Amino acid sequence: MAQHDTKPLQDVQAQKDSRRLSIDKVGVKDIRYPILVRDRDRGQQHTIASVNMYVKLPHQFKGTHMSRFLEVLAEQNETISVENVPDILRKIQACLNAEEAYIELEFPYFIRKEAPVSKASALMDYQVRFSGVCVGKSYQLTLGVRVPVTSLCPCSKEISQYGAHNQRSHVTVTLRYKKFIWVEEIIELVEKHASCELYAILKRPDEKYVTEKAYENPRFVEDIVRSVAADLEKDPRITLFTVESENFESIHNHSAYAFISGGD
Amino acid sequence: MAQHDTKPLQDVQAQKDSRRLSIDKVGVKDIRYPILVRDRDRGQQHTIASVNMYVKLPHQFKGTHMSRFLEVLAEQNETISVENVPDILRKIQACLNAEEAYIELEFPYFIRKEAPVSKASALMDYQVRFSGVCVGKSYQLTLGVRVPVTSLCPCSKEISQYGAHNQRSHVTVTLRYKKFIWVEEIIELVEKHASCELYAILKRPDEKYVTEKAYENPRFVEDIVRSVAADLEKDPRITLFTVESENFESIHNHSAYAFISGGD
Amino acid sequence: MAQHDTKPLQDVQAQKDSRRLSIDKVGVKDIRYPILVRDRDRGQQHTIASVNMYVKLPHQFKGTHMSRFLEVLAEQNETISVENVPDILRKIQACLNAEEAYIELEFPYFIRKEAPVSKASALMDYQVRFSGVCVGKSYQLTLGVRVPVTSLCPCSKEISQYGAHNQRSHVTVTLRYKKFIWVEEIIELVEKHASCELYAILKRPDEKYVTEKAYENPRFVEDIVRSVAADLEKDPRITLFTVESENFESIHNHSAYAFISGGD
Amino acid sequence: MAQHDTKPLQDVQAQKDSRRLSIDKVGVKDIRYPILVRDRDRGQQHTIASVNMYVKLPHQFKGTHMSRFLEVLAEQNETISVENVPDILRKIQACLNAEEAYIELEFPYFIRKEAPVSKASALMDYQVRFSGVCVGKSYQLTLGVRVPVTSLCPCSKEISQYGAHNQRSHVTVTLRYKKFIWVEEIIELVEKHASCELYAILKRPDEKYVTEKAYENPRFVEDIVRSVAADLEKDPRITLFTVESENFESIHNHSAYAFISGGD
Repeated sequence: MAQHDTKPLQDVQAQKDSRRLSIDKVGVKDIRYPILVRDRDRGQQHTIASVNMYVKLPHQFKGTHMSRFLEVLAEQNETISVENVPDILRKIQACLNAEEAYIELEFPYFIRKEAPVSKASALMDYQVRFSGVCVGKSYQLTLGVRVPVTSLCPCSKEISQYGAHNQRSHVTVTLRYKKFIWVEEIIELVEKHASCELYAILKRPDEKYVTEKAYENPRFVEDIVRSVAADLEKDPRITLFTVESENFESIHNHSAYAFISGGD
Repeated sequence: MAQHDTKPLQDVQAQKDSRRLSIDKVGVKDIRYPILVRDRDRGQQHTIASVNMYVKLPHQFKGTHMSRFLEVLAEQNETISVENVPDILRKIQACLNAEEAYIELEFPYFIRKEAPVSKASALMDYQVRFSGVCVGKSYQLTLGVRVPVTSLCPCSKEISQYGAHNQRSHVTVTLRYKKFIWVEEIIELVEKHASCELYAILKRPDEKYVTEKAYENPRFVEDIVRSVAADLEKDPRITLFTVESENFESIHNHSAYAFISGGD
Repeated sequence: MAQHDTKPLQDVQAQKDSRRLSIDKVGVKDIRYPILVRDRDRGQQHTIASVNMYVKLPHQFKGTHMSRFLEVLAEQNETISVENVPDILRKIQACLNAEEAYIELEFPYFIRKEAPVSKASALMDYQVRFSGVCVGKSYQLTLGVRVPVTSLCPCSKEISQYGAHNQRSHVTVTLRYKKFIWVEEIIELVEKHASCELYAILKRPDEKYVTEKAYENPRFVEDIVRSVAADLEKDPRITLFTVESENFESIHNHSAYAFISGGD
Repeated sequence: MAQHDTKPLQDVQAQKDSRRLSIDKVGVKDIRYPILVRDRDRGQQHTIASVNMYVKLPHQFKGTHMSRFLEVLAEQNETISVENVPDILRKIQACLNAEEAYIELEFPYFIRKEAPVSKASALMDYQVRFSGVCVGKSYQLTLGVRVPVTSLCPCSKEISQYGAHNQRSHVTVTLRYKKFIWVEEIIELVEKHASCELYAILKRPDEKYVTEKAYENPRFVEDIVRSVAADLEKDPRITLFTVESENFESIHNHSAYAFISGGD
């Protein structure tokens, strides 16, 4: 075992850098951490997030102090919500002497879904992402939600004597708002525009229901993104958004895909 | 909207099958669900598991009733531990009229780690897997833990004037036991045999400590698996085990890898 | 820049180890390398493989010489086929003084598919795996093929007024044979037992064809694995096999799954 | 088998859409296809690309004809280079009556690397991405290259009696140019600024060389991105760029990360 040095340890990161290049983002990536998220229907839920935290590094500093990001995260005692993301960013700004601070949290979010006929219920997972940034005093949050749904092809239905190819699709919405929006609202909006929504438990009457409902509501990938985008466009709370849908085509070994961005 | 049929819905899965082939495993895969796991130091912790559940299907049955797996899972009210895995399997056996039932749960598991000198602490994640099987009345659990560590190369150290290449490694242990073993014990055993263990927060005195410790404890991927295997071999509670290590070599674009299996 | 040492460099891996534990497999993992594979219809095709190579390490040796695996691979001049896998293994045995040598190659394999009505053609990819092992003079190859197909649910079709949920499925066959079998034969066997096979290009008459064909051929995940297993069982060239199917259910956010193993 | 309909098949995608929303990108995603790429040292090399192709869809059209993308791809007879990407895009514009067309190709790219002392050589893989877009007559290509390297920590080296933690890092450069740049040039630029570059084969004299070289060239993630960015900034051929580095820290279970964007 090495002897302790008596001289203090160099702070190499605080040395000067002479290349005159600031760094847009520097920090830590892919930390897994338990968090508690606010939940419209159940108050709150525990989940596990993948976390990235960055600051902008001015040109004169050689490096940033990576451990301080972890300390800020650990101080949260695992409670993170849309409400305290700005506080976390301000702590990062303070601890790292940074003008700009960024945080990205990606996690599964669970909603209790009742099957449409039998009402059998279980939790189903959706992937959610909070991206927050503080530049000086100003704060911006971008909310992202990925909603898995059923899509059934209008062309296939139209031209075939019977049947219609359908598949699971991932519809992802990202948005910025000026007034609070629940993740659940975004999920409900997307599910409304799919051929049919998904459920964890489906008994036979439910399976009949979803099969017939999807057949009655054929949607191209283009239809899904347009309908969702039209609703987001009309919502006065929303300032900017993107909608994309990826259909894992049941008749091909590739996906169909569409993307729209919009907002003020 | 389709009219309700008045005739009862066919149970197609319960029809006879004439190919005379039983199916080793049939069921549901990649369900994400919140669970509560027992924790040696904190009592319990919330995490999110990826869940697979299967039964053996005798040759005369056409199909299994997939929704029943989800119902058994949902009934658990999110509380799953090594203790109640046998109950879950017995419910699966009962609900699906199956002789053999299987469950696989894979989830991140968090341990609070204190940095070696500063004692700064934060949670760090380890990947854990419970695989349970019930055949008739008999029950078997296989526990798996993947422990990320630092490995430093003895050859590189020996032949170089200074420095030694090192990298993150994933050491995965799977084992069966006759007497209960905590996940924490397996983690501690592996971390003891690495060049050094990992920490979430490292201040400068900690960074000095781990750098010097790794340098003092060079380990080939072969050394790590042998040392861990030797300890597992000696532990009377353990009946069967595997140990593997994957070193994400810092000097190559591929990994070094070693695997040992052992036990009674 | 360091001065060259005049003393020869220690061969640390060749030192003795005293724990008396042999290592089942040690070597290199996740090397990406271009290969040329024999192709029944086009003679040969270029693809990119992920390669793992291992040896068994007797208890008295501290470590293996990882670089020799790469040298054997590089010597192949990118030409690897089912025929020369035994040679590669024998070179590994020789260069690493090993009794047992292993190689695993996983790569995309392309087949030109003509759409069923329009005959429009393009390449479609299948994932293939060769696993070879030499123990002393004896050699064993395991061939694996993952075939993406369409599966349409018999229950959904039976109980619904119209439509039937369908999705992409991955059917994976692994097998050992005593007489050569082309990858194409395995693919054709699996595609025959699906609700319908996939195509890269589908014009409207083709889309009508595949939609109706899938509807006329509903298959549970259990049906697919049984039918494929029954054919593999009857093929005298095949000694051991496994068949599994994973259906990425269009009505759920999880998969249905079935697995059968069989053979002599 | 269904009877052939005598009426022509509806072109549902060509129907009118009344929501007055154009779609920024619609098309096909995650097609795997063999390609031939130009190579500065060997003329050309075969590899396998993951391909996405999209068009912008004006508001009045309901959907796009997905199969036409595959037909354009298939026509290329597997030969795609930076030179013919514009032609592919123009064919997409023509076949799909689109004003804007996009293609993304991501593939492993191999370079023969000689070990620094022994000169033992083998191929090593780098991940490359071409993103092309045609808007009307104007064409823009973005080139991306991910270079794996060794990074060794300056702080760890400075404060420790011996050793220094190091790890594999992924340095990714994306850029637009006005005069042709080889992928090899970008790779060489990045490798020059790492603590050390990687090699497939390293004999003992090579391992000594790379160990000592990394130790002599400690680099923070901040240093790597700054040095690379400074060189890209000075290159008159380059109009826009981004540089990011992800270090898979050997002492943590997360990564250090930095990102700079620059150019005219």
